[in-house]
Amino acid sequence: MTSSWSIVESPFRSAAAMAYEGLFTLGSGYLHVRGSLEEHLSDAPQNVEYTRPPADVTSERFPEAKAKWGTYVPGIFGDHPLLGREMVNLPFLLGLVPVVDGERLDVERGVIEEYRRELSLDSATLRRALRWRTHAGTVVHVTFERFVSGTRPQMCLQRMTLRAERDTHVVVHAGLDADVRTNGYDHFTAVELSPANANGIDCRVRTDGGDEVRLMTRVSARAASWRYEPTAWMATLITGLSISADRELVVEKRTAVVTSRDRQPVEPATLLADAERRSFQELHAEHADHWRRRWESCDVVIEGDERSQLAMRASLYHLLRCHVTGDARVAIDPKGYSGDAYWGRYLWDTEMFLLPFYLYTDPARARTLADFRVNTLDGARPNAARYGYPGARYAWESDDQGRECCPNRIYADNEVHVTADVVYGLAHYARAVSDPEYLRGPAAQLIVETARYWMKRLDQRPGKDHPSLLGVMGPDEYTPTSDNNAYTNRMVAFALQLASEIGRDGGATNEERAAFARAAAALPIPRAADRELVLQCDGFDRLADPRFDELWRDRRKTFASQVPPEHLHRSRCLKQADVLMLMMLFPDEFSDAELRRAWDYYLPLTTHDSSLSAGVHAIVAARLGLMDEAWSFWQSASGLDVDVERRSAAEGVHIANAAALWQAAVFGFAGMRTALQADVLTLRPRLPATWSRLAFPIVWHGCPVYVDVTRGGVTVTNRGPHPLEVRVHDEPRRLAPQ
Amino acid sequence: MTSSWSIVESPFRSAAAMAYEGLFTLGSGYLHVRGSLEEHLSDAPQNVEYTRPPADVTSERFPEAKAKWGTYVPGIFGDHPLLGREMVNLPFLLGLVPVVDGERLDVERGVIEEYRRELSLDSATLRRALRWRTHAGTVVHVTFERFVSGTRPQMCLQRMTLRAERDTHVVVHAGLDADVRTNGYDHFTAVELSPANANGIDCRVRTDGGDEVRLMTRVSARAASWRYEPTAWMATLITGLSISADRELVVEKRTAVVTSRDRQPVEPATLLADAERRSFQELHAEHADHWRRRWESCDVVIEGDERSQLAMRASLYHLLRCHVTGDARVAIDPKGYSGDAYWGRYLWDTEMFLLPFYLYTDPARARTLADFRVNTLDGARPNAARYGYPGARYAWESDDQGRECCPNRIYADNEVHVTADVVYGLAHYARAVSDPEYLRGPAAQLIVETARYWMKRLDQRPGKDHPSLLGVMGPDEYTPTSDNNAYTNRMVAFALQLASEIGRDGGATNEERAAFARAAAALPIPRAADRELVLQCDGFDRLADPRFDELWRDRRKTFASQVPPEHLHRSRCLKQADVLMLMMLFPDEFSDAELRRAWDYYLPLTTHDSSLSAGVHAIVAARLGLMDEAWSFWQSASGLDVDVERRSAAEGVHIANAAALWQAAVFGFAGMRTALQADVLTLRPRLPATWSRLAFPIVWHGCPVYVDVTRGGVTVTNRGPHPLEVRVHDEPRRLAPQ
Repeated sequence: MTSSWSIVESPFRSAAAMAYEGLFTLGSGYLHVRGSLEEHLSDAPQNVEYTRPPADVTSERFPEAKAKWGTYVPGIFGDHPLLGREMVNLPFLLGLVPVVDGERLDVERGVIEEYRRELSLDSATLRRALRWRTHAGTVVHVTFERFVSGTRPQMCLQRMTLRAERDTHVVVHAGLDADVRTNGYDHFTAVELSPANANGIDCRVRTDGGDEVRLMTRVSARAASWRYEPTAWMATLITGLSISADRELVVEKRTAVVTSRDRQPVEPATLLADAERRSFQELHAEHADHWRRRWESCDVVIEGDERSQLAMRASLYHLLRCHVTGDARVAIDPKGYSGDAYWGRYLWDTEMFLLPFYLYTDPARARTLADFRVNTLDGARPNAARYGYPGARYAWESDDQGRECCPNRIYADNEVHVTADVVYGLAHYARAVSDPEYLRGPAAQLIVETARYWMKRLDQRPGKDHPSLLGVMGPDEYTPTSDNNAYTNRMVAFALQLASEIGRDGGATNEERAAFARAAAALPIPRAADRELVLQCDGFDRLADPRFDELWRDRRKTFASQVPPEHLHRSRCLKQADVLMLMMLFPDEFSDAELRRAWDYYLPLTTHDSSLSAGVHAIVAARLGLMDEAWSFWQSASGLDVDVERRSAAEGVHIANAAALWQAAVFGFAGMRTALQADVLTLRPRLPATWSRLAFPIVWHGCPVYVDVTRGGVTVTNRGPHPLEVRVHDEPRRLAPQ
Repeated sequence: MTSSWSIVESPFRSAAAMAYEGLFTLGSGYLHVRGSLEEHLSDAPQNVEYTRPPADVTSERFPEAKAKWGTYVPGIFGDHPLLGREMVNLPFLLGLVPVVDGERLDVERGVIEEYRRELSLDSATLRRALRWRTHAGTVVHVTFERFVSGTRPQMCLQRMTLRAERDTHVVVHAGLDADVRTNGYDHFTAVELSPANANGIDCRVRTDGGDEVRLMTRVSARAASWRYEPTAWMATLITGLSISADRELVVEKRTAVVTSRDRQPVEPATLLADAERRSFQELHAEHADHWRRRWESCDVVIEGDERSQLAMRASLYHLLRCHVTGDARVAIDPKGYSGDAYWGRYLWDTEMFLLPFYLYTDPARARTLADFRVNTLDGARPNAARYGYPGARYAWESDDQGRECCPNRIYADNEVHVTADVVYGLAHYARAVSDPEYLRGPAAQLIVETARYWMKRLDQRPGKDHPSLLGVMGPDEYTPTSDNNAYTNRMVAFALQLASEIGRDGGATNEERAAFARAAAALPIPRAADRELVLQCDGFDRLADPRFDELWRDRRKTFASQVPPEHLHRSRCLKQADVLMLMMLFPDEFSDAELRRAWDYYLPLTTHDSSLSAGVHAIVAARLGLMDEAWSFWQSASGLDVDVERRSAAEGVHIANAAALWQAAVFGFAGMRTALQADVLTLRPRLPATWSRLAFPIVWHGCPVYVDVTRGGVTVTNRGPHPLEVRVHDEPRRLAPQ
């Protein structure tokens, strides 16, 4: 195993603790647990109540903290009086604390002579080893191991191994702690704790969203007898053991989590009993095997730059971790269930950033994400009705029911492109998996209902012969109220065109379908006087100079943190790719000269304040052959979470950026076109200077393919049973199987 | 006393209770008390905690309530974690409750055979008389009288008179209740209650804003002995008395209020003792005399329509009530201290709506309002700095320190015209009172500092030879992010021009002053292609059709309550006068044709959702000679609070509308020009068809004048010692004294 398969923290530093907590999140799709320390830190209470204002997350400052626990089960949402529905942070289940010589392990205050924590990406396992000298002088070697089982997704398995260099007495605490808050708010309407057998704790919480969540933990250590100590909000099992010098004490903790929304209800005791027959090693072996198989479908090999390889794998790890396999009642939030900063809600990231990765590596799982939108159509209808529109309008920030939860009106009101993005995603799914019937069947109503919304949302300006889409926010949130945003107009035209084509199956009349098609054809893409420059929106070129030189004093921080919103809103500054994102999605509709013109115009105006920006820019730069720029954006995107000095992962990893990194490798450096962009598998690889190899598996219309790009050339292997057409650097080829 | 001097409530109806509570607010400038019932209503708790979202007040729905207490001392602000600083609702001091036959007076549940409550506007006195038949059959005549003394502004005086038609036993409760909230929030960090002598209560509260407020009440009734009954948050004095048939029982309650921010601290016991020597009648006589004198300076006589007369006097009553005499540390909030819906903050209403009334009726008092802005310059500086600007920027919603409290970013960020309105107000003050030295002295720094802010706030658009003011909200808040709003640009030009003139006294360099003048001259007033139409902002005519016919289904309710904000923002719909307000303020800069064109263009687009709209439209219509329209807007404005069926006063009266009504009479129907609009007193009266007379006193450059307009002609009486030039219907005249 090389270092490109693991992330290491050594030594411990308080300032980086939260970044590692986010980065070291373990998960199974069902259960996600942030990488908090088993023994926790001092002075880092997790029950602090505060009022988080309904502010813009991008520029929000979170309360100072050294650590932030997170235990999440997708779909468990609670009601916040101000912030809307949010994913609930569940009781902390990791607690496992050694006390030696009366001293509790504390990596900040204790004497820690060695410290190494390592997340093995291949097996999704977190291990920590430390050498601790107690104030009384005992040297103790402590090892923690932990994984959330891929094969038993409701279980978290932990093991602690202690070895002291002299005979000593050890006390071990292992608990479940429900005294936690979500964004400063208490979502538990009831907490019940009770002992479960002689060595277990049963913890039931009821949330204000009406769900019941039950955690049952069981601890074991040879010859230990456990004492149960409850308080109102937590319970601890405690044992005291004498250990001889250099003999290992092994403590295991196994926790099962179930909720009232599970589709196949099972008792947590049953889950524990099922696992009872297997040793920790055996359970880990089946888990590691599961992950090995998942990696086979998606691992992207990068040779020549270990940093790139590690960042790529860290991204893939989190993408694999957070996919909610087979449960289309939930999707993936922007933090990929590794933090609650975005309230666990579902945004446009799903379709435009995450979906392609799943589509081309594991199409069956990708369907979950498509189905989620279909399933929440009934939540999107009231979103339209509340605004006085017919049809359906997808929420900017959706809960599991599709309801709009965004408390920030200007986003909820204006960032309407999400509704078209959803349709684009469904079309992408249907095309990539060669299932056109999906659009005429499950998705048809969604497509027609959203088209009906668009038809009423369009305005006819005086004196114009085309409809306009006024007062919208495009991907660039720094121009929050704009007219005829090019990206949005094009996506809406895409959605309306599709509705005109499949509308009959969704209940549209012929008259409606004709109107959809007319509007789709007439929606304008605004251009500057010279016509070659696509404008982000009407009058974008009349906005003020952003005055970066004068006002953006500290370039390590976002521009938005240094100027007021009103300055952003009236200036020609972009938060992230907007016209360039449009051109990335519709490459055949814009000439190279137009793409280059847009690049030259918008790049100097773009702040990249959004984590969604760098990946898209890397792809566009690679297309333009601007390899220095592509490399620079790749480095920026790839370092975002892995580079803990940036502390970006503290509130959770950026899962859309992780997926954008995969897109940058596959769509950017390998130059692959998506199934919506080409009928034939098309590649135009251009590697960064430092890379000697880029290789990855993909699934193309059901056919498994392996792409291997080296300095010497491109090898495409058809691993399917049928011949495959490909087009590499514009040369068509027909590949026989294998 | 005719009915045009009083407002009568009869019978009691629960649905109108809150509207009367607002409309019947009594006040002295120092102390304001909403017109709540002494005995209160059942099931109307005043200690309910709730979270008021930081929403747009205009479209906010308040929690359902039957009654809402309000006791306010201007300047007592508390800190709300979400809503910013807000005026604190102080303990309820009115409680005075008779219990007969074991039955507590309850005007909803009891048998009330007669009920009449009357606010005498001339003497600012509230009286209530009711005949109550207890369930046991006793008929009791109850009279309540109440006033907040004009001569002892820290005191509220109450009297209850009971007469039963048969011998009976009466229990009386009189209390102070600190179990109150402000907008659902508890601002009291400490409450201390204690008995004061044998018949008094001493209540001290400390607010989270750091102020101490002390209320001391003393009750008296012949032969009564009072029992003191405290709870944690309130205290009550209770007595039981036997009364003979048809003999009156008189109970008096006198309450004094002091705060830690009083500039001349005095003990409440001293205030009570000072008043002790005087009977209720004597105290009322001095109070009524005080009010009589105040009325003399401002009463507007309208003959021919009693409804107009009453509405005018109700408006003047509240304007007189809420002026904070001589304390320039506070101004007047939009509810005129008769409710806390607007958090007791100070907005542009002060300069643009309220100030003219005080300026032309009581110039010495008007200075308080001008000085308030000068005094809060140090609060306006950080408002600029926080946005990265030099100089000073006045808050959209200011507390007593000038700090921005508006939790709604788009208003705080974009509605910048307030900073220019403040300068306009100071210029208006200085001109009207003939004190140009005010601008060169106390106000000079403010004028220069705000000009410095403007110079950085202006943008230079590519290809334009003039500066632009981008991303602003004008008076019409339905176009919240617009470029070169005509009103704002003109007001900013006014402010910059003034800064260039007096800048030396405010510390501006010659170079700065020249730059101020250049920018003032160059700021554009946008116009449509035909040039005659002044556009509200760049591209206003390219906004969408508001589709009133389709979407504004219930015209009794605001348009904003029936469409989403995004529809308002992208449509050509106005909340209130914007270009017309500009033209009203600068009549010589626009031709009659331009004014008429603007009227014809904007009126059909204007929703009048704001209470600030009707008054301005009445004035402009009168100028245009559109007397039917002027009358219609007058009726709309004049009925706003007085017509309790509209329930508009429930959360407090609309003090800016009250002042706009005065403006509509004086600037509209009497056609008077302000001192900024004309050097000579200029009148061009045009009476509504139903009016036979309009007469009012004003002060013109220090000279008292009486204007009397009848169908027969205009009489202007010079009540000053010097000759006066006037111009009536364009005819110049010179009036000798008297």
